[in-house]
Amino acid sequence: MQFTRVTVQEQVGTVSFERGKVNAINEALVMELTERLQQLAADPQVKAVILTAAGKFFSFGFDIPEFLSFSREDFTRFLTNFTSLYRKLFLFPKPVVAALNGHTVAGGLMLATACDRRLMVPGKSKISLNEITFGSTLTAGFLEMLVFLVGTRDAQRMVYSGAMYTAEEALTIRLVDQVCSPETLMDEAQRIACAMAQLDSRAFASIKLLLRQPIGDRMREREPDSIKEFVDVWYSGETRKQLAEIKIRS
Amino acid sequence: MQFTRVTVQEQVGTVSFERGKVNAINEALVMELTERLQQLAADPQVKAVILTAAGKFFSFGFDIPEFLSFSREDFTRFLTNFTSLYRKLFLFPKPVVAALNGHTVAGGLMLATACDRRLMVPGKSKISLNEITFGSTLTAGFLEMLVFLVGTRDAQRMVYSGAMYTAEEALTIRLVDQVCSPETLMDEAQRIACAMAQLDSRAFASIKLLLRQPIGDRMREREPDSIKEFVDVWYSGETRKQLAEIKIRS
Amino acid sequence: MQFTRVTVQEQVGTVSFERGKVNAINEALVMELTERLQQLAADPQVKAVILTAAGKFFSFGFDIPEFLSFSREDFTRFLTNFTSLYRKLFLFPKPVVAALNGHTVAGGLMLATACDRRLMVPGKSKISLNEITFGSTLTAGFLEMLVFLVGTRDAQRMVYSGAMYTAEEALTIRLVDQVCSPETLMDEAQRIACAMAQLDSRAFASIKLLLRQPIGDRMREREPDSIKEFVDVWYSGETRKQLAEIKIRS
Repeated sequence: MQFTRVTVQEQVGTVSFERGKVNAINEALVMELTERLQQLAADPQVKAVILTAAGKFFSFGFDIPEFLSFSREDFTRFLTNFTSLYRKLFLFPKPVVAALNGHTVAGGLMLATACDRRLMVPGKSKISLNEITFGSTLTAGFLEMLVFLVGTRDAQRMVYSGAMYTAEEALTIRLVDQVCSPETLMDEAQRIACAMAQLDSRAFASIKLLLRQPIGDRMREREPDSIKEFVDVWYSGETRKQLAEIKIRS
Repeated sequence: MQFTRVTVQEQVGTVSFERGKVNAINEALVMELTERLQQLAADPQVKAVILTAAGKFFSFGFDIPEFLSFSREDFTRFLTNFTSLYRKLFLFPKPVVAALNGHTVAGGLMLATACDRRLMVPGKSKISLNEITFGSTLTAGFLEMLVFLVGTRDAQRMVYSGAMYTAEEALTIRLVDQVCSPETLMDEAQRIACAMAQLDSRAFASIKLLLRQPIGDRMREREPDSIKEFVDVWYSGETRKQLAEIKIRS
Repeated sequence: MQFTRVTVQEQVGTVSFERGKVNAINEALVMELTERLQQLAADPQVKAVILTAAGKFFSFGFDIPEFLSFSREDFTRFLTNFTSLYRKLFLFPKPVVAALNGHTVAGGLMLATACDRRLMVPGKSKISLNEITFGSTLTAGFLEMLVFLVGTRDAQRMVYSGAMYTAEEALTIRLVDQVCSPETLMDEAQRIACAMAQLDSRAFASIKLLLRQPIGDRMREREPDSIKEFVDVWYSGETRKQLAEIKIRS
């Protein structure tokens, strides 16, 4: 466990990304977070979860430079694990609050979208699904979650344009639920998570799954074809050239 | 027919609940309303329906004290009948207007949600899906209808919190279509129902079902598992304790 | 090709209806537009498409007087071709902008609904799904697209009432994306189409289909039964009488 840290306070487990300055998502981070979630789901002391990070980024999204050396097979395996992670997060039986401390981009937003609530800091931090700007497609499962969150219209507008949103703009389309200053973000996340931790656990899990399982089922059903398509686009000459130009500040 | 009353005026059939002060839903009321709807559907003189009640409650929801003496088998049968009732109401071939004269809670809101339009009195009357506050889950079919009505986001917010809404608040999330003073409620409901009664009956029924049948199909498909889960939660020790504390004013 | 005209400018293909004053949709127009779309999809010089017309009508909808002489078999074939056309438009792999130059009614709105963006002129021009006002039903595929566009609530309100909307009103429910003066409509449509033409073509097509293919699949699945029902209602005595009264200005 080198890229995530977990603390538990008042029945709330907080998972923080700790991978460099931008928390780029690589396979190790995905496997770690998957294991963290499994532990938190099983831990009877934990009644709610917060997902967050420190610094200017919640997450930059995929660690593209690292993935450029991956074979198609390896990248397919990573995508299978990543999509499985966001699906588990979407169907996580306990309440999950995303405390978006900074830029929340692409794969980072995919994880945030899976949560029950999103709080975000205002100002320079941007939220974006910029895949189309570098010739990448998206995944079927993520689009199912995005439509669940903001509806088809705003989902279409976001993914067609790849535009960047401030937290305030994201609030108007309800992509985030609340804008919090950096000073109050974690307190507010803790307050909300604590309140949700008081709910009857079994009733909450049951209601959450009644609402989300049908979407989860479609996600699982559509994902294998979607991953194949994602890989085909990712390894096409035109997209590959654009990916090679992406740098990560570290 | 002891818990409902029907009057017909200008091709509009009005069904009123008449079960004590709070119109708590028990099995007899469900069976009666089911039969009333069947008669109104078959009556060529009736072109639209209003669902309402008198007093401070449209409906309190399930008659919990009465159900506490039910065996699991009996309660399962009741739920099967109740979910079948709201599905028939959701797919009722004629226009249905809910005139919400007062508090509209839990099972009462489930019936209101199935209608084509909802008018509600302002002020102290509350609308609420409070199941989570006493450890109960919901039903899959109702959640399908709620998402149809207000979308996934507001549906999730309502059912996670169990919060109470005034009619004015319910209007902002479009859970009700219109707020009417108690003095004008029935006139306005009659006016709207009359206008809908003028629509070409066959075209209306066809269009309504084109829009709602896919949801109706999912409701029917998901309901049996959902009822099983509902019963499991309802009879669990923790929830049972909370149910036993609920009193009904009569 | 007598009822449509195509011009290409800066990688944007513009298809204009040219059928009399109101661009009533008959079978020849449907077959022509289907062929035009096929050509534009295959043309590597074309990266985006605009759909528009001249005069006071984008389209009046079906050429009802012409269809009154059709046998049930012929009308069924027309509906099969028409629904296939709007489905192809909905799933068209390149961006499609509808520049609504005037009244956009019934079948005309169905085509507009299938596009990625809708711009419309303000003022007297009306947008309407008036089917219920003359006893006609709608099609399942169109309702799927309408719900995709505006959500279930506004879809239900529109199709239950058959009401007419100005562009400004249509904007508030997001049935159109933008209101443009007649003088700026085509420039603005060209500007937007050009911008969308710059997007990575493959990524755009992939993302568009990830979002729309599930709806397209339901459209195809539900359409045959829906067409049968549409024909049954259309040929019923009551509706036939109302259809016979409809005149088209030419």
